[in-house]
Amino acid sequence: MSNEKNAQNQKQAAPQTAITPTRAENYPEWYQQVVRAADLAENSDVRGCMVIKPWGYALWENIQRSLDKMFKDTGHKNAYFPLFIPLSYFEKEAEHVEGFAKECAVVTHHRLKPGVKADGKEGLIPDGELQEPLVVRPTSETIIGASFAKWVQSYRDLPLLINQWANVVRWEMRTRLFLRTAEFLWQEGHTAHATEKEAMEETLKMLEVYADFAENWMAMPVIKGEKTEGERFPGAVNTYCIEAMMQDRKALQAGTSHFLGQNFAHASDIKFSDAEGKISFAWTTSWGVSTRLIGGMIMTHSDDDGFVAPPRLAPQHVVICPIYKDDATKADILAYCQSLQKELSAQRFHDRKVVVTVDNRDIRGGDKAWGWIKKGVPLRVEVGPRDFAANAVFVARRDTGEKAGVPRAEFVATVVERLQSIQDNLLARAKAHRAAHTREIDTWDELKAYFTPKNPERPEIHGGFALCHWNGSKAVEKRLKEELKVTIRCIPLDAKEEPGRCVVTGEPSARRVVMAKAY
Amino acid sequence: MSNEKNAQNQKQAAPQTAITPTRAENYPEWYQQVVRAADLAENSDVRGCMVIKPWGYALWENIQRSLDKMFKDTGHKNAYFPLFIPLSYFEKEAEHVEGFAKECAVVTHHRLKPGVKADGKEGLIPDGELQEPLVVRPTSETIIGASFAKWVQSYRDLPLLINQWANVVRWEMRTRLFLRTAEFLWQEGHTAHATEKEAMEETLKMLEVYADFAENWMAMPVIKGEKTEGERFPGAVNTYCIEAMMQDRKALQAGTSHFLGQNFAHASDIKFSDAEGKISFAWTTSWGVSTRLIGGMIMTHSDDDGFVAPPRLAPQHVVICPIYKDDATKADILAYCQSLQKELSAQRFHDRKVVVTVDNRDIRGGDKAWGWIKKGVPLRVEVGPRDFAANAVFVARRDTGEKAGVPRAEFVATVVERLQSIQDNLLARAKAHRAAHTREIDTWDELKAYFTPKNPERPEIHGGFALCHWNGSKAVEKRLKEELKVTIRCIPLDAKEEPGRCVVTGEPSARRVVMAKAY
Repeated sequence: MSNEKNAQNQKQAAPQTAITPTRAENYPEWYQQVVRAADLAENSDVRGCMVIKPWGYALWENIQRSLDKMFKDTGHKNAYFPLFIPLSYFEKEAEHVEGFAKECAVVTHHRLKPGVKADGKEGLIPDGELQEPLVVRPTSETIIGASFAKWVQSYRDLPLLINQWANVVRWEMRTRLFLRTAEFLWQEGHTAHATEKEAMEETLKMLEVYADFAENWMAMPVIKGEKTEGERFPGAVNTYCIEAMMQDRKALQAGTSHFLGQNFAHASDIKFSDAEGKISFAWTTSWGVSTRLIGGMIMTHSDDDGFVAPPRLAPQHVVICPIYKDDATKADILAYCQSLQKELSAQRFHDRKVVVTVDNRDIRGGDKAWGWIKKGVPLRVEVGPRDFAANAVFVARRDTGEKAGVPRAEFVATVVERLQSIQDNLLARAKAHRAAHTREIDTWDELKAYFTPKNPERPEIHGGFALCHWNGSKAVEKRLKEELKVTIRCIPLDAKEEPGRCVVTGEPSARRVVMAKAY
Repeated sequence: MSNEKNAQNQKQAAPQTAITPTRAENYPEWYQQVVRAADLAENSDVRGCMVIKPWGYALWENIQRSLDKMFKDTGHKNAYFPLFIPLSYFEKEAEHVEGFAKECAVVTHHRLKPGVKADGKEGLIPDGELQEPLVVRPTSETIIGASFAKWVQSYRDLPLLINQWANVVRWEMRTRLFLRTAEFLWQEGHTAHATEKEAMEETLKMLEVYADFAENWMAMPVIKGEKTEGERFPGAVNTYCIEAMMQDRKALQAGTSHFLGQNFAHASDIKFSDAEGKISFAWTTSWGVSTRLIGGMIMTHSDDDGFVAPPRLAPQHVVICPIYKDDATKADILAYCQSLQKELSAQRFHDRKVVVTVDNRDIRGGDKAWGWIKKGVPLRVEVGPRDFAANAVFVARRDTGEKAGVPRAEFVATVVERLQSIQDNLLARAKAHRAAHTREIDTWDELKAYFTPKNPERPEIHGGFALCHWNGSKAVEKRLKEELKVTIRCIPLDAKEEPGRCVVTGEPSARRVVMAKAY
C-alpha cells in the first residue's frame, strides 16, 4: 500500500457510528452513552452526585462567562452567601419549606470521633451535635433575604440586583447526569425592588435574557411562558420559564424566573422607607439556570456519532490532526499545522478567540478522528501528505458530516463564517424538529392518541408538544398527568387570544397552552 | 460663598480619617472596620460563615480570572467534584482524617419532617437518616483520588493536571472575615504523575505561580519555603508555602503546595502501567489558595483611611466624580466626565480594560469622596467648574494621598502609567515594611525580647520576622509556641547555607528559618 493510500485510509478506518445504542434504538441510554463518549461527566460514589469532567466543565465555563456578561450588562453584581441555611430561616416561608423539606441534605454535627458505626464496626461517628440543624442550600431565597433585610433601608438602596454562582443540593431520588443530580451548579439571581411593576419587569427581563442565551448561544429554541399555579416555585406568586423540545420530543424546563411578590420580603423582613418616609415591604424576584443546560444542549444537538457542541459554547472550535507516515514528512506537516493553528487562532468568533488545537498524539488516525467526533468539535481538519503538497486542508463539519478538501487560504478566510454556519444550522434544525412535532389539538381522543406510544417497547416515542385549550383547572392538570403522563409546560407569553374549548372538559378557554411529557 | 468656592469646599469637607480605630490604636479592630467600611463582607447568622458582598466578590473574581489563566497556561484543566465525601473515603488516609475529623460539617439526614425540636417547640426535625454519614468537603484529596483511580490506567494518562474552584467547610471555632471562616471559597489543584521527580517539580512550579501572583498581582511580597514536619498538611510528605508579613508584623500563610508522595495514591488506589507494563502507584500533589488572599491584601495595603486595592486586582481603577452647583454647569460637566470615561476605558492595564465609573449620585461631595477612599479605588478624579473651564482634572492617588490638578490630555495619556506606579509603590512599600521588621537573631534572650510586646496593652506589637538557626527538633517548636506564641513559618527555599547554632539549644544548624507570630 502506498503511503498516500495509507494516509487516506487512516481517515476512513472507523466504525459506522460511535454511539451504541443509537437514538432510535434507546434514547435514554443513548444520552448516557453520549455523555460518556464525549467525556463530559460521570457518576460518583456519592448518591446522585456527579463528577463534571474537564470537557463538560469547559462547557459550563463558557456558559458562565457568557451569562455572567449578560447579567452584568443588565446591572447585576455577583456576591456570595453561606452554603448552610439555619432551619429557622428555612421555615419562615410556609410554601417554600413545604416545597423543599422532603429533599434536603441536613447537617447535624460538626465533628467526628472514634466510635462504633451502624454496621457494628469501629470507625468514626458524628459528634458535636448542633443546637440547630443546618440545611445545605437547595436555593437561597431565605439566606439571601436575611442579608437583603440588612442592606435595604431606603428607596435609594433599590433596586438591589444580585447574582450568585454556587452549588446547591436537592436530594433527588432518581438522578441522571446533568439533567437531575443531587448536587448541581447554578446561578441564582435575587433582586429587590420598590414597586410591583419594577419587580415584574425584572422577572420578565431575565426570562428574555435566558431565552436569548438559549437560542443564540446554545442554538436551542425555547418557548417563553408562565407556569400554572401547581407548577410554580414554592413561595412564588408567578413562575415564568423557558421550555425546549429535546430530540425525543419531551420538554426540558431550561430556566425559570420567579416573581415573588412580597412573600419573601415578609418572611425575611425586607423593608424600605420611600421618599416620603413611609415604610413598605420590597418586591422581590429570583431566577436561575443550572448545569441542566448542558443536558439540554446534549439532547438538542447530538447525533448517533456523539456530542455536537454549538460553536459559541464549544470548548474548542477546530482540531487539526496531522497525518504523516515518516519522520521526513512529519516535520513539514507539523509545521504546516502549527502555522495554520496560529492563523486560525488570530481570529475571533463572537466574544472569544477561535480556539484551535493540534492533536499530535501517536494513535491511529481513525481513533483520533472518532475521538473528536464524539466530543463534538465543530470543525475537524486533517492534514496529510496530499493536503500538504496541495497547500490545502481536508475539513469535516461536525453537524452535517460534510467533508471536503479546501485550499488552505480559503479555509483560513472562511473559518469564522463556517462556525457561524454551524451555529445557524443547529438552531434551524432544532426549530424544524420542534415545528414537526408540535400540533394544535382540540379533542381528548386526538390528545390521547398523540401521547400514546405506537410501539409499547418504545414508550418514549410519542407526539411531542400539543397546543391545546385548557379551562384553567387543577383537575384537568391532574387528569393529564395521571392518564397521559403529560403536564402543562407553560402558558406561552406570545399566545394569541383565540377563543376555544378546553381539550378535556369542553369549557371555554381564551388561549392555548403547551402540553407535553417532560424531563 | 461663591459657587466655585462651594465646589472646592465639597472636596475638603470630610473627617480626618475614615477608620476608627486606627491601626496604631487597635489593629484587629481596625481590620474589621476596614472590611466593613469598604463593604467587602459581613458576618452571617450562620456560625462562622461570611457573606461576601459585591465589592469583595469583585476582588475574588479578579483573583480567579488571573490565577485561572496562570493554571491553564501551565497545562491544568478545571473540573468539578462532589461537595460530599463518604465517611469511608475520608478514613482511607490515616493522617488526613486525623487532621480534619475535629472540624467537619457532617450530613446525617436527607429530609425534614414535622416534629418536636430540641427546645420543645413544634417544627421541622431531621428525617431520613443516611446509612453512611457524608462529610462536607474540607479539602478534596480523597474524593478526587477516587476519580483519578478510574481515570489513570496507563502512563499515557499522566501527568493528570486538574484544578477545581469550589467552596469548602472547616468548622473553625474562632473565625474572622476572609482570614478564617467556616466556609470559604478556594481553588484546589490536584495532579498525578508517573515519577517522584515530576510530582516534586509540579509542587514547586505551583508554589512559584502563587509567589508570582502574590508579588506581581497582589503587590504582596512573600517568602517561599518548606513547612516543618509539624506544620505539614495532614497526609503530605512535604508542604511548601508562601508567607507574607502583615502590617502588624504577623505572618500570613497565603498559599500552600503539597508533595503528597504516594500516600494518597495508596489510599485511593491510583495506579498506572508503565511502558513496560509494570504497575506502579502514581505520585500526587495538591495546592490551594483561598478567599484568605483577600484578607492578606487588605492587611498588606490598607491604611487609616480604609482599603487600598492593588490596581491589578481592583474592582475599579478610576472613579470620576462630577462636582456642579446648578443645572447649567451640570450638563457640561457630566458630558465632560463621560467623554473622559470613554477615553480612559479605551485603554488597557495589563490583562483588562481600564475600569472607570462616573459617580453621579446626588450626595455630598465629601461623603462621596470618602466612600471611594474607603473602598480603595486607585485613582479618584474630581471635575468641578474650575477643572472644566481649564480642560483639566483634579486627581487623587489612593496609595500616597497625593492630589493635583492635571491637564486632561496629560491624565488620559498617563493613566496606565499612574496605575502601574501605584502597583509598584504598594509592592515597594510592603517590601520595605517587611525588611524593617525582619532581623537575624542568634540568642534566646534577644528572641524573647523581640517577640515580647513592649506595651502590655498592645499585645500585637512585637518585632516581626526573626531569622534564626534551629536544631530541627519538635521540642524547640513546642517551646517557641508555648513561651513566645511563635511558630516556624518556613524553611526558606533560598536560604543560604550558613553554619550556626540553634537559637534555643545552641546545637549546630545549617541554615536559618523564619520565626514569627502568625494568623
